[in-house]
Amino acid sequence: MTDLLWPGDERAGDLFTDAAILRAMVAVEQAWLSALVEAGIAPPEARASLTGLLTPSDADELPADAEAGGNPVIPLVALLRERLGSDSDASRWLHRGLTSQDVLDTALMLCLRDTVDRIQDELRAQAAALAGLTDRHRATVMSGRTLTQHAVPVPFGLKTATWLAGLLDAAEDLEAVGVRLPIQLGGAGGTLAGPAQLARLARAGAPERTALELTDQLAAALGLRPTPPWHTNRTPVTRAGDALVRCTDAYGRIANDVLTLSRPEIGELAEPTRSGRGGSSTMPQKVNPVLSVLLRRAALAAPGLGGQLHLAAAEARDERPDGAWHVEWSALRLLARRTAVAASQATELLAGLQVDADRMRATAEAAAPDLLAEARSLAELSGEPAAAPRDLGGYLGSTDLLVDAVLERAASYLKGAG
Amino acid sequence: MTDLLWPGDERAGDLFTDAAILRAMVAVEQAWLSALVEAGIAPPEARASLTGLLTPSDADELPADAEAGGNPVIPLVALLRERLGSDSDASRWLHRGLTSQDVLDTALMLCLRDTVDRIQDELRAQAAALAGLTDRHRATVMSGRTLTQHAVPVPFGLKTATWLAGLLDAAEDLEAVGVRLPIQLGGAGGTLAGPAQLARLARAGAPERTALELTDQLAAALGLRPTPPWHTNRTPVTRAGDALVRCTDAYGRIANDVLTLSRPEIGELAEPTRSGRGGSSTMPQKVNPVLSVLLRRAALAAPGLGGQLHLAAAEARDERPDGAWHVEWSALRLLARRTAVAASQATELLAGLQVDADRMRATAEAAAPDLLAEARSLAELSGEPAAAPRDLGGYLGSTDLLVDAVLERAASYLKGAG
Amino acid sequence: MTDLLWPGDERAGDLFTDAAILRAMVAVEQAWLSALVEAGIAPPEARASLTGLLTPSDADELPADAEAGGNPVIPLVALLRERLGSDSDASRWLHRGLTSQDVLDTALMLCLRDTVDRIQDELRAQAAALAGLTDRHRATVMSGRTLTQHAVPVPFGLKTATWLAGLLDAAEDLEAVGVRLPIQLGGAGGTLAGPAQLARLARAGAPERTALELTDQLAAALGLRPTPPWHTNRTPVTRAGDALVRCTDAYGRIANDVLTLSRPEIGELAEPTRSGRGGSSTMPQKVNPVLSVLLRRAALAAPGLGGQLHLAAAEARDERPDGAWHVEWSALRLLARRTAVAASQATELLAGLQVDADRMRATAEAAAPDLLAEARSLAELSGEPAAAPRDLGGYLGSTDLLVDAVLERAASYLKGAG
Amino acid sequence: MTDLLWPGDERAGDLFTDAAILRAMVAVEQAWLSALVEAGIAPPEARASLTGLLTPSDADELPADAEAGGNPVIPLVALLRERLGSDSDASRWLHRGLTSQDVLDTALMLCLRDTVDRIQDELRAQAAALAGLTDRHRATVMSGRTLTQHAVPVPFGLKTATWLAGLLDAAEDLEAVGVRLPIQLGGAGGTLAGPAQLARLARAGAPERTALELTDQLAAALGLRPTPPWHTNRTPVTRAGDALVRCTDAYGRIANDVLTLSRPEIGELAEPTRSGRGGSSTMPQKVNPVLSVLLRRAALAAPGLGGQLHLAAAEARDERPDGAWHVEWSALRLLARRTAVAASQATELLAGLQVDADRMRATAEAAAPDLLAEARSLAELSGEPAAAPRDLGGYLGSTDLLVDAVLERAASYLKGAG
Repeated sequence: MTDLLWPGDERAGDLFTDAAILRAMVAVEQAWLSALVEAGIAPPEARASLTGLLTPSDADELPADAEAGGNPVIPLVALLRERLGSDSDASRWLHRGLTSQDVLDTALMLCLRDTVDRIQDELRAQAAALAGLTDRHRATVMSGRTLTQHAVPVPFGLKTATWLAGLLDAAEDLEAVGVRLPIQLGGAGGTLAGPAQLARLARAGAPERTALELTDQLAAALGLRPTPPWHTNRTPVTRAGDALVRCTDAYGRIANDVLTLSRPEIGELAEPTRSGRGGSSTMPQKVNPVLSVLLRRAALAAPGLGGQLHLAAAEARDERPDGAWHVEWSALRLLARRTAVAASQATELLAGLQVDADRMRATAEAAAPDLLAEARSLAELSGEPAAAPRDLGGYLGSTDLLVDAVLERAASYLKGAG
Repeated sequence: MTDLLWPGDERAGDLFTDAAILRAMVAVEQAWLSALVEAGIAPPEARASLTGLLTPSDADELPADAEAGGNPVIPLVALLRERLGSDSDASRWLHRGLTSQDVLDTALMLCLRDTVDRIQDELRAQAAALAGLTDRHRATVMSGRTLTQHAVPVPFGLKTATWLAGLLDAAEDLEAVGVRLPIQLGGAGGTLAGPAQLARLARAGAPERTALELTDQLAAALGLRPTPPWHTNRTPVTRAGDALVRCTDAYGRIANDVLTLSRPEIGELAEPTRSGRGGSSTMPQKVNPVLSVLLRRAALAAPGLGGQLHLAAAEARDERPDGAWHVEWSALRLLARRTAVAASQATELLAGLQVDADRMRATAEAAAPDLLAEARSLAELSGEPAAAPRDLGGYLGSTDLLVDAVLERAASYLKGAG
Repeated sequence: MTDLLWPGDERAGDLFTDAAILRAMVAVEQAWLSALVEAGIAPPEARASLTGLLTPSDADELPADAEAGGNPVIPLVALLRERLGSDSDASRWLHRGLTSQDVLDTALMLCLRDTVDRIQDELRAQAAALAGLTDRHRATVMSGRTLTQHAVPVPFGLKTATWLAGLLDAAEDLEAVGVRLPIQLGGAGGTLAGPAQLARLARAGAPERTALELTDQLAAALGLRPTPPWHTNRTPVTRAGDALVRCTDAYGRIANDVLTLSRPEIGELAEPTRSGRGGSSTMPQKVNPVLSVLLRRAALAAPGLGGQLHLAAAEARDERPDGAWHVEWSALRLLARRTAVAASQATELLAGLQVDADRMRATAEAAAPDLLAEARSLAELSGEPAAAPRDLGGYLGSTDLLVDAVLERAASYLKGAG
Repeated sequence: MTDLLWPGDERAGDLFTDAAILRAMVAVEQAWLSALVEAGIAPPEARASLTGLLTPSDADELPADAEAGGNPVIPLVALLRERLGSDSDASRWLHRGLTSQDVLDTALMLCLRDTVDRIQDELRAQAAALAGLTDRHRATVMSGRTLTQHAVPVPFGLKTATWLAGLLDAAEDLEAVGVRLPIQLGGAGGTLAGPAQLARLARAGAPERTALELTDQLAAALGLRPTPPWHTNRTPVTRAGDALVRCTDAYGRIANDVLTLSRPEIGELAEPTRSGRGGSSTMPQKVNPVLSVLLRRAALAAPGLGGQLHLAAAEARDERPDGAWHVEWSALRLLARRTAVAASQATELLAGLQVDADRMRATAEAAAPDLLAEARSLAELSGEPAAAPRDLGGYLGSTDLLVDAVLERAASYLKGAG
């Protein structure tokens, strides 16, 4: 999978690729078939390994068959049955009791788990990098800017602490999403009637309960959380989407500062240099802040995708929806891959960010009269203008304590993640 | 505040009205002024009650003065100072150490708290109503519909259990938001330099720590959570937005079913009747499902507003942003009020929803051959077509257990909320 | 109407206020009643003036009655009938043949017309201001910046020409919208059955044709375009929305440049100064670029509103929709008012924009080696490094001709608008 | 290119595929190189055919190199130069005077032209199909439904006429976009300094004018419109986006009616049947309205993509933007391909739509008392209840004339498109 129009896309590797989703769908069918056999519902002869039944070219050809039924599960089941030998027991028992949505939703949750894991790795690296920058620059004075204009002095380490707090918020929400990723298992109408009927036909004692136990087994086999069917209650998807957007929100906010502060007229930050990075097709002198440009791109796109997932949730209808479900898949994939790309780029950016502390200080010194105007105004209030700080370092407020608090939170996150 | 173009708007009462926001801003200024006096930073003479300084007409006139500085805090402070007598101590100490964003962000959090409380009340009423419907209709068979077509039989109580699960998810997230609503207190650049400077001028022992303690006192006085400044880390806002949209997602999903099932050709549900409700300007026979229409409206609008808040978060920049902050206020207000309106309408809808169980059963019976096609297909698999259920009630799967699980969750929520 | 959370809102005056919409709805009812009388369908006794029947307080009270039927037309008609005397002929004939959507859609088109007119006035003023700047600065050299970094020299007048081109595009689309604003007249199901029936009852010769002629008369009376009913074909609304967003796109693009170039480290542009403008609640030195901040705010919000209108269009259903119509009204109003506010602010910004040509030149001179790197590279290609321009003015390409082309287009627009 | 998660994607063929975009970029480079040679700027030895230089595997490998410079043009130029022999004249002159954005923007316009052409073909087929349905069913009475409830009788042909009007609006806007698709040619800073410098080095008489003439030649060679640079004035992109969304708006509106009216309880419409279409993975009886489901999906997704393009336009900055440009490409591609897919599906749907006129009539007859309630109410007004229509056909208003008007418009469109 390559995407010429989303530079950096290959950083997401095989997360949510067609091939990865197919693999995940096969894993769901496999786990279900095995569960049926193990529960004594399907005969031992139905046991089969689905691994290796698909060839790489299937990922190219199968999508074209997905339109007829409106989703890719139907042609996948047909293909697997054909490969299993259509009169084999495995073929006959494959997918029995499931509905397409069970398989695709669960497969997407598996892909999402890989994505969450990947992004959490990046977040940890970013938190570590930012904690280092924050501690190192807790006394590096720069001009604090509000509404683009010089405001009061701030240590650069406070700025990075704020970036860090945004990342920790995102990590917290992503963690909560990751541990709650559910399987989807409801059968055609979300009643588990198919599984229960299969259990009844197999003379199970309490078929309704057996069907629920199959849910637990499937969840355990796939490492997901057992949960009632959520065919039309899309909270798992919107919560995941919200957490992913929270990541790109944090990256966008960082990128905006890097883009501003690496302007040549400001020159307080620079992106990590790497041969060939940031070049232009026509201007030999150019070193563009490409990582930040691409992060900003992701941050501008993600809110729309998150909103798309909410709209799909709000538009659910009946026992399974008539389009609202279908619009969700691609939005989730785009959001997941793009966030993973952004996470990787952000790690590289933060690990190698170049800070020009001298220039920060010089700019702030030159603007000192403005940056200390508030201080003078407060001193006048107390009738002691002499008490106004004369140097920028004397007007940094409680930043040391604020920085400590964020660093402590980061340390706790990094340890917990250990 | 009335809104001719958002029928039902008055259900939100004074949540987030201009007047309510002004009151909340005054409450923030009051709490801060008192904290300064109590900490011995401002002189006792600066103690003043701001309550009653504003008149109702201020809410009409003040907005026009908000443009010059780009926010409504600046003219409010000017007005309060004028009313306090511009050479009074209270006037001189008012707002000292704060920045506009501290006041407005905190005021919006206060308004948000009221909104969350209001919506939680509605959610509890809805959960109770839905728990009742769910239990009552756990055996009411209807046609389960997927992609608009007859699928398998489902009990109506399973449908309402799914609605209920969506509401409980939203309630859970809203609860998490409610208990974490933070104050905003950072001063001009998020450093607390102003408060620390004031403490220093007052000869406080550890002015940096005193400034932080003022944060705690302000938070305690206002009933919000103390937290580091979040001028450019907008997680509190996006989390609130996401939770509110999760509410309208759940309402939209319910409304879609009511709209579908109350079509005259289906006739399985009807909205509660009330004199004058649902009428037309020209067709005397009309009884339109107006509550559902208006809920659906809200659900179609909310995702865009939630996305707007994320975009604003992603576009933060510098120590305080150059437009991204300003675009957030109105989006948050619209989302909050509209969700409150929808919540109130949803309560009325669910409390009075009319269920035609006979028609549900009749339609399902007529469609029985279709609704049991899967059952027959599974029976054939086991070689025992005789084992296929002959009646719809025999193919309801594990719905009783699924319903129990959701009811238990609802009971726990309702008790916890006690 | 004031909006504390959208500073500058009062610039939109009474465009799309509740009162204005009520007036417009009354104007529609009036025109229709008169048309019925003039066509001999309603008796002469039904002639009545509706002007003055509403009092200012109605705008406060009527909205609360809009929920029952889901729109504000129903209570308005009830109120007008009551004020006309419920057994008067005028009361009996009022609104006959119309449906709520006819009245509200047409009223919104009337409000939209006022908005388009207002914004076109602003666009003309902006085009004139920008044409002046463009001509004046066609040789003012500055650093051209791409991806935030120095690229090649550009005249400031080329930048303003690009701004101008964006405004002319928006003006062109807005003009096209303005001349096509339609009435809505279809009756309950878009068939004109009501009007035709009334004509038939009045013994009109060709009642079906008479009904269509009434459409033409209503359109002529209101100054709108006659058109087939568009109850569920919302092109008039989405086209208007797209054109309005095109305006804020252009303003946002300008504001971004002003915000960047008025940073103190760059200092090439400054907003027009006005006493009290751009101040801070705590920092006495501050002069924030507030107009640009507020323009940027509008530009960040508008795309979501435009998308909302498209979603509403896509979600139309049946002969009149079940929520998609209802979500449109408020989005259209917000988009219209906010664009009008932005237009007014943009005029003020552009009319008073301060250009520091010396600083532009100084910065560009200092960056000359970078800005001429491409020139040198091209000269090397031809084997004549000596031919590389040594000064920035020698590397401005065809900007003079490009500027002429845009100025010509602006002149033609301004003349046409005469 | 396959997309497992957007069933039907293969209908878009190679529109906007990575390979197609690469081909288009090569075509731009080719046309520019040839123009340089023909203008005597580059030496005759620089003439070269770029066709065939790229191999199919390049489309897989090149994207990974796009990240370093932030766009795919830089690695493409490097690759072409390598293939041309790095010390060849063609290699040295390739891309000279252009900037990456010139090449990519122009290439995207070429892809857009193919998309517009494709969709226009579909729109013509749809218009023809709908004109046929409209004429055939101008007297087919059905229940008109508003807010989901029976309203007044309408002919099915009026419903299709409304669908048709939406398509004609979209076609009109798409036509306007298609004839205005511009080339992008501005060089590094939009000044044409590179081309002018090349002309000067080649001793061209009026190098600034020559550069502009090169624009005309490039436009002529590529079949696009010559225009001033629009690097930061994205009207061409947003206008295209708006027109594409207008298409999916129209398809969504149609799909909603088909989904509603093909519900088994209503049964007035059915999708065209085709073996295997609409099946379920578990329910043998199922025939789902898959085309409409997938159209609805597209309509729910498109407004967000259109809004994304506007946001990108509003976020332009400097002479070329720092992320806003980069976010545009993928949104445009997704919108273009998905609209093309939807267009193809809509043609199939409309060409084979099954209309059950008997059931329409039967349902309407059964609801006649309701459907004629307005008629009776109007008759009472005139004091002649006897004059109320007793049958549905007598209360169809001016639909015949309304239908004629739309059919005339369609005929004119189809003839013009000839």
